Amino acid sequence: QSSLTMFGVVDAAVTYTTGSGPASTSRWQLTNSANSFSRLGFRGNEDLGGGLSAGFWLEEGLMNDTGTGFPSNTNNQLNGTAGLGTQTFNRRSTVSLTSSTLGELRLGRDYTPTFWNTALFDPFGTGSGIGANQLYFSGLGGLQAPTGTRASNSIGYFLPANLGGFYGSVMYAMGENISNSTLPATPGALPVPNKNDGRYGGIRLGYQSGPFHVSIATGLTTYATGDLRVSNLGASWTFEQLMGLRVMGEYYVESLGAVDGKGALLGFILPVGPGEIKASYARYVRQPVGNVPDPTTSKLALGYVYNFSKRTAVYATVARLTNSNGASQALTGVTTSPNHASTGGETGVRVAF
Amino acid sequence: QSSLTMFGVVDAAVTYTTGSGPASTSRWQLTNSANSFSRLGFRGNEDLGGGLSAGFWLEEGLMNDTGTGFPSNTNNQLNGTAGLGTQTFNRRSTVSLTSSTLGELRLGRDYTPTFWNTALFDPFGTGSGIGANQLYFSGLGGLQAPTGTRASNSIGYFLPANLGGFYGSVMYAMGENISNSTLPATPGALPVPNKNDGRYGGIRLGYQSGPFHVSIATGLTTYATGDLRVSNLGASWTFEQLMGLRVMGEYYVESLGAVDGKGALLGFILPVGPGEIKASYARYVRQPVGNVPDPTTSKLALGYVYNFSKRTAVYATVARLTNSNGASQALTGVTTSPNHASTGGETGVRVAF
Amino acid sequence: QSSLTMFGVVDAAVTYTTGSGPASTSRWQLTNSANSFSRLGFRGNEDLGGGLSAGFWLEEGLMNDTGTGFPSNTNNQLNGTAGLGTQTFNRRSTVSLTSSTLGELRLGRDYTPTFWNTALFDPFGTGSGIGANQLYFSGLGGLQAPTGTRASNSIGYFLPANLGGFYGSVMYAMGENISNSTLPATPGALPVPNKNDGRYGGIRLGYQSGPFHVSIATGLTTYATGDLRVSNLGASWTFEQLMGLRVMGEYYVESLGAVDGKGALLGFILPVGPGEIKASYARYVRQPVGNVPDPTTSKLALGYVYNFSKRTAVYATVARLTNSNGASQALTGVTTSPNHASTGGETGVRVAF
Repeated sequence: QSSLTMFGVVDAAVTYTTGSGPASTSRWQLTNSANSFSRLGFRGNEDLGGGLSAGFWLEEGLMNDTGTGFPSNTNNQLNGTAGLGTQTFNRRSTVSLTSSTLGELRLGRDYTPTFWNTALFDPFGTGSGIGANQLYFSGLGGLQAPTGTRASNSIGYFLPANLGGFYGSVMYAMGENISNSTLPATPGALPVPNKNDGRYGGIRLGYQSGPFHVSIATGLTTYATGDLRVSNLGASWTFEQLMGLRVMGEYYVESLGAVDGKGALLGFILPVGPGEIKASYARYVRQPVGNVPDPTTSKLALGYVYNFSKRTAVYATVARLTNSNGASQALTGVTTSPNHASTGGETGVRVAF
Repeated sequence: QSSLTMFGVVDAAVTYTTGSGPASTSRWQLTNSANSFSRLGFRGNEDLGGGLSAGFWLEEGLMNDTGTGFPSNTNNQLNGTAGLGTQTFNRRSTVSLTSSTLGELRLGRDYTPTFWNTALFDPFGTGSGIGANQLYFSGLGGLQAPTGTRASNSIGYFLPANLGGFYGSVMYAMGENISNSTLPATPGALPVPNKNDGRYGGIRLGYQSGPFHVSIATGLTTYATGDLRVSNLGASWTFEQLMGLRVMGEYYVESLGAVDGKGALLGFILPVGPGEIKASYARYVRQPVGNVPDPTTSKLALGYVYNFSKRTAVYATVARLTNSNGASQALTGVTTSPNHASTGGETGVRVAF
Repeated sequence: QSSLTMFGVVDAAVTYTTGSGPASTSRWQLTNSANSFSRLGFRGNEDLGGGLSAGFWLEEGLMNDTGTGFPSNTNNQLNGTAGLGTQTFNRRSTVSLTSSTLGELRLGRDYTPTFWNTALFDPFGTGSGIGANQLYFSGLGGLQAPTGTRASNSIGYFLPANLGGFYGSVMYAMGENISNSTLPATPGALPVPNKNDGRYGGIRLGYQSGPFHVSIATGLTTYATGDLRVSNLGASWTFEQLMGLRVMGEYYVESLGAVDGKGALLGFILPVGPGEIKASYARYVRQPVGNVPDPTTSKLALGYVYNFSKRTAVYATVARLTNSNGASQALTGVTTSPNHASTGGETGVRVAF
């Protein structure tokens, strides 16, 4: 009663993106992961009897347009990332003991509790597509943060599965700095102790029943230069009478040291025959120190996915990203002038296995 | 009706190579891939019904003498190669949709159409063995060129399989430079736009029927510093009455900017019981700018392979490489003086799975 | 009658280590491989008939606390290690031909004969745990030596299996330097030829029958800066009447150029129900040039392993490392003052597959 599984996704798309304004660029690319993140994984499970089981999960991200992989981050700090292009089990690398009544203890590199709502309550998720969650791409605690998606050196606990729709998890992850660790000293200043840099603590609680799903999460990553705090709430409702329309939304607040950010997202997925229509609108506001207007970014995305089977799909997406109050975010791979828009389109194939 | 397959080759050989002349060196090595290129791969296929199927292919090259892998090239340009020794799916990383009547659409990193004739119409192929195709090792558009073997960011189309022996494919691959990309400026000169550097387009057409096989291919890689053009023709005939003797040849022309090269190869494979005798002779001429003699390199290789089974073989090869008109090519890992020869021998074991 | 197997270990532990004295540090970590070394491997075997078989083995080490891997060493020399964090088949990468009567010929990267006694005759082995073999961690020819564990570019021969308890192997591995290779010249000195640097030769012989097991090994790695010589003897006796108590020991001598080292280890494993109690005491003495006291390091380790199944276990270890005569070795990840102790504890989960 033990299992060993190889699994993955290979997803590639032709993508055109462009900025606007004097400082803008445009680009044609073959991109990966626009519908679902490309990956290769190995996982297994052993039934130990008495409701107890053990398992492992090793999963690496793929940039299959070029055959390369992703580095991991070894200490949950900005200096902890290894070289570009290498393959690592950056997506997940865990060993678990699970009791059907007590829950799961999980050790290793895993998703942070504060990540999940951003991915699950967005019709386009957090992949590399042009429609993907703008709060995640713009945010202080999203793609760019060492603990924005996953944490290394983590100890996780998950509630058991049979709680009438309630679920939850907590994670504690270590930066593993030595006891007398300090930041590189600046001239004329005393070294700043940073023993706890890269330490993450977070919690997520949710409830899913019938058409309804809601989840909240909050987390704190410790840095001597200013802690990173992320909190978010996601919810969705599936209207079975309206062709199975699923409407969803997310609210997101964060801070990194003295800088704050907040955002919200609304979206839907509408099944149409073997396909589905997806749309989302997200708005993210950075709140800088001082009396200046808050840089604001919005993204509108519209997509269609045609499912040949559960595993195989073709898809197309268009997206438009707008900036105001000095913001200059752009779609993947290009630049746009401050307060100018960036637009793009993509079409691709996804195979899961 | 879906499949998931792990496959590969592990091939290792003891190799001695030496140059000659005052500047020559010699070397003993444990090499890899002298009979077939060492690799580890994962591929799968899903039957979607109605003659349609979807598939993926992830394949990494191995240097199994040391346990290391190969970097990929992410932009089809000389600066696009990641660190040495890392493992990537450098050999192939693709997702496909295939129709039995319309052919295959393939996205990702894949072989260029202009590569195949060099590998298929040489008894020793293009691996790391001392007998391997000299046109490939000497040439401007072979081993050293970012698109000499494979291209990243590619869109490929393959004719369907049932065309009475005819087959064909085209590939378009992107360098993915941004719209205002320029080469690093040289002092006193204006920056040179290179938006299209690394863009590859190529086509291959062939016919195989009974004892006869012929294939032609041509391709162009765009570079602001001078385009790379490669064309080749390969053909083979199998004489069933002469113990199954297969005679083959290749003609190869290329240019990189103002420099030209051309070459030709003749070879045969003679089955003898469970083994086979192989031989090839190749001659490559570089045509530099100006009124100087053309550097010329020739390689003569002779080999024997003993097949324990379809998967497992032991083999031995000897090769001699000669230079004239100032050429100084040498067998793997050593150097030889200009106009001097390089010789070597290897014996090894190959297991496929 | 051919096989293809995916296998591995994922082992993670929460670890606290500390030094003592004014220069000491302490550290909390999530570590890997404290009970068994984490790995992912692919191996296969083909029966060729007549007692002959062929096989391959590709195995990579894992740091599953972060999802990263280990570089390999490509030339058995200190400069032969690639970048940190990358995944390679650093643990083993071999192709084999095996005859049931003549033995096995194995080519590639493999364990050196001089490594095995250190791992097999220590209750804690040579993993990353705090209890692991101190001779291996302190020694000149252990963890730090390019050929202390494995060698690349190796040719190995193993005696056949049916010799009444006797077994043995020899290995010859190449540094693969070119014939005129020299060390980087120091100012005012002539370059020193080092064609043979990284060349390893070693042999191991053993006998195992009933409760008794003994093995000796010796090896030489050639370096122009001073050869590395390692010899060791391990033995164990299993007392079936004493609850299956297995008592074991190792004696170890080595030299690197003019510096000598020697050490010894005693340990036991006592099965208790589904678990086992383990303990070891090791002492290692460095013998430097000149009339100074010999730096000496000792480690005492005590552990308990609870086996849920053959594959899954939880475990805990405590260890204390003491220094004298100026030695300052410490447990993993921390520092201790000269002649001061380092102590630690760890508890974790191991899953094998």
